[in-house]
Amino acid sequence: MERLPGFRDFYPEPLPHTDVWSADARSYIFSKWRQMAMRYGFREYDGPPLESLELFTTKSGAEIVAQLYNFQDKGGREVALRPEMTPTLARMVAAHERNYKKPIKWFAIPQLFRYERQQKGRLREHFQFNADIIGESSPAADAEIIALLVDTLRSFGLGTEDFQVRLSSRQAWAEFYKLHKGDPSREYEFYQAVDKLERESPENTRKKLESLGVSYDEVTAFLQTAKPSADLAPILENLSARGLMEFVKVDFAVIRGLAYYTGVVFEAFDRKGEFRAIAGGGRYDNLVRVISGGKVNLPALGFGMGDVVLFELLRARQKLPVFKSSLNGYCAIEDEKLYGPSLSLVQQLRDAGLHVDYSFIPGKLDKQLKRALELGASWIVWLEGGGETGPTAKLRNLHTREERRLPISGIIEAVKEFPDK
Amino acid sequence: MERLPGFRDFYPEPLPHTDVWSADARSYIFSKWRQMAMRYGFREYDGPPLESLELFTTKSGAEIVAQLYNFQDKGGREVALRPEMTPTLARMVAAHERNYKKPIKWFAIPQLFRYERQQKGRLREHFQFNADIIGESSPAADAEIIALLVDTLRSFGLGTEDFQVRLSSRQAWAEFYKLHKGDPSREYEFYQAVDKLERESPENTRKKLESLGVSYDEVTAFLQTAKPSADLAPILENLSARGLMEFVKVDFAVIRGLAYYTGVVFEAFDRKGEFRAIAGGGRYDNLVRVISGGKVNLPALGFGMGDVVLFELLRARQKLPVFKSSLNGYCAIEDEKLYGPSLSLVQQLRDAGLHVDYSFIPGKLDKQLKRALELGASWIVWLEGGGETGPTAKLRNLHTREERRLPISGIIEAVKEFPDK
Repeated sequence: MERLPGFRDFYPEPLPHTDVWSADARSYIFSKWRQMAMRYGFREYDGPPLESLELFTTKSGAEIVAQLYNFQDKGGREVALRPEMTPTLARMVAAHERNYKKPIKWFAIPQLFRYERQQKGRLREHFQFNADIIGESSPAADAEIIALLVDTLRSFGLGTEDFQVRLSSRQAWAEFYKLHKGDPSREYEFYQAVDKLERESPENTRKKLESLGVSYDEVTAFLQTAKPSADLAPILENLSARGLMEFVKVDFAVIRGLAYYTGVVFEAFDRKGEFRAIAGGGRYDNLVRVISGGKVNLPALGFGMGDVVLFELLRARQKLPVFKSSLNGYCAIEDEKLYGPSLSLVQQLRDAGLHVDYSFIPGKLDKQLKRALELGASWIVWLEGGGETGPTAKLRNLHTREERRLPISGIIEAVKEFPDK
Repeated sequence: MERLPGFRDFYPEPLPHTDVWSADARSYIFSKWRQMAMRYGFREYDGPPLESLELFTTKSGAEIVAQLYNFQDKGGREVALRPEMTPTLARMVAAHERNYKKPIKWFAIPQLFRYERQQKGRLREHFQFNADIIGESSPAADAEIIALLVDTLRSFGLGTEDFQVRLSSRQAWAEFYKLHKGDPSREYEFYQAVDKLERESPENTRKKLESLGVSYDEVTAFLQTAKPSADLAPILENLSARGLMEFVKVDFAVIRGLAYYTGVVFEAFDRKGEFRAIAGGGRYDNLVRVISGGKVNLPALGFGMGDVVLFELLRARQKLPVFKSSLNGYCAIEDEKLYGPSLSLVQQLRDAGLHVDYSFIPGKLDKQLKRALELGASWIVWLEGGGETGPTAKLRNLHTREERRLPISGIIEAVKEFPDK
């Protein structure tokens, strides 16, 4: 029996096969995300992986359905596996925002799902770090969320040579569109054309833009010459005070495909241009109002960073640590008669907070030593003797091979001298 | 827009409403689970939340479909949201077992889904701690998994007065059934009747048992007088050597409803009998063979512990800690002119690994002090002065209200004296 196409199995390292993913790498990535969010004062939330289909179509229009894992449940409800977290966040905030002082700073690490029929071989799920600030319209909030994005990538050991956050403004493009008398009813089509500028042929883009009443040459001229717009200036000043400007660049070619952004937008790219965007986000001041049916009106902004591109980038830039088990020690059991006292020792070591494994079946010391090394233990302990004075312990450092004999009561103290894992 | 019935939203504490769940409590429970599994030398894995329907029907028969979130995906595949983790584990192990030395000790914390139409108001998802040992038939493995279950519950502060693990044996009941000449083709019905003994009326059970050719009185006599069977004895001896016998009791009334158990079975109950079983598990030596279509044959055993009953038990026994934000400190900004240097300070504090929040908009110190207290910060810092000598910092301990003036360069050292969170 096979897993479904586009889904991942996560195995402990070392990985048995290239078609599976590393549970240890996932855990490493999640813990960095979590740590950095908390360092910035963000608090964790989560919602259901399954939501009513309406939540997503309200935000993104009926076209989104083509890309969703949606179905009718046994109660006749139209439901979908979440393709993104923001609608759930907006729903949750709208339901209980009165109980939280603003600004709200929340993060989540949801698994997200998309069903794209045409893209065989591509993943249909990924995990995404989502961080959002709700209830703050000041550009200080934009700078805070961009700083979190930068520092998160830095925490993986990535530097200015590895990534850059490109900053843009929907508002600047809206003003451009108005100034150049674009068709007001088709503004979103204009954003999509700008978004595709680097991927489409110049001819197609020229045709598309002209159909909207805008000149291709004026668009490319704007891209090359425009100064940071009024809304970007205070954000840049803020990031500069934090010493983060070297990671950031204004680039109006970034505009983000999604319809719901209202202000500043940004994407993090790898500097070598080998991967898709590492993360993206922006301001979406209308979404909470739309999702709450007009009941709650709160400005908001945030970003999402997926685990797949990040993992590939970290691997390509050799920034992934070597993953070993977290095991501290191993208790070998040679002598059947010492099985009981050995179990008691294992229990004491674990009670002391140590990560300890042992041999289920008594056997030769050599074999158990090999097993302890395979499992990545730092030390091995075994009992010897017995008789009138009771058994004593032998403790061997698996790195230095240094060995010492000590009373059982002294083991916990002795192994606490080994470095933490 | 509302969330789907039976699903949970997880909010940061303090909770806004009783109809939502605590993201902080969830995180606390997950981290204890993870910690204890690692202390026992288990390694984390995960699989997809969506699997082919066949994976679950192969294990549990076609009847399981009535309880599943299953549907046909857009590629025409019959799929289901996972109702349990064991089939995925068996599938993953069967695919790559050659790369892992036995015994394999793995754990996962999957979200699981069930669609039960009739039980309105009951949850349709929960998270479950799953720990399994694969490739070891020795009763030492049974004892290890039961010890992990006991120690996991102990790690939440639960003691012998709070819970007990009741141990039983499918094998002992199989021998009983054979000895008393029950209908061999209906053995599983017998287990189900025993499983329901405490919930069904004696009349119904008597009728059911007699239809199988077994006497009700002999069953109840066996329950009251049977000694630990031969397969349980070494497990009890093992647990006794660990000093865990006070948490364990043999009770043949436990038999587990699922068809796939083959040996020892067990459940953890709260001692006051207020809740459903806290956890349950047992040995399932045939499952890997069945799931792999006969290709891989490995003995296996494990348990599952859900987050819902555990959370309710911990709350009822007042074992949940008070959840606060992890925030260490707060940087107040009174003077607009000091905004830049304050941002620089915040960046330095975060770079040093501290969890720090600050005011997006400069304002009165009083208001920001209140905010810092609400957020659970241990200290607040703000800059003052400027001019020729540059600004200096004021640092206030929010617990003792002690306040001191110091140079900006001395803040990191000073706040490191505050206790960790």
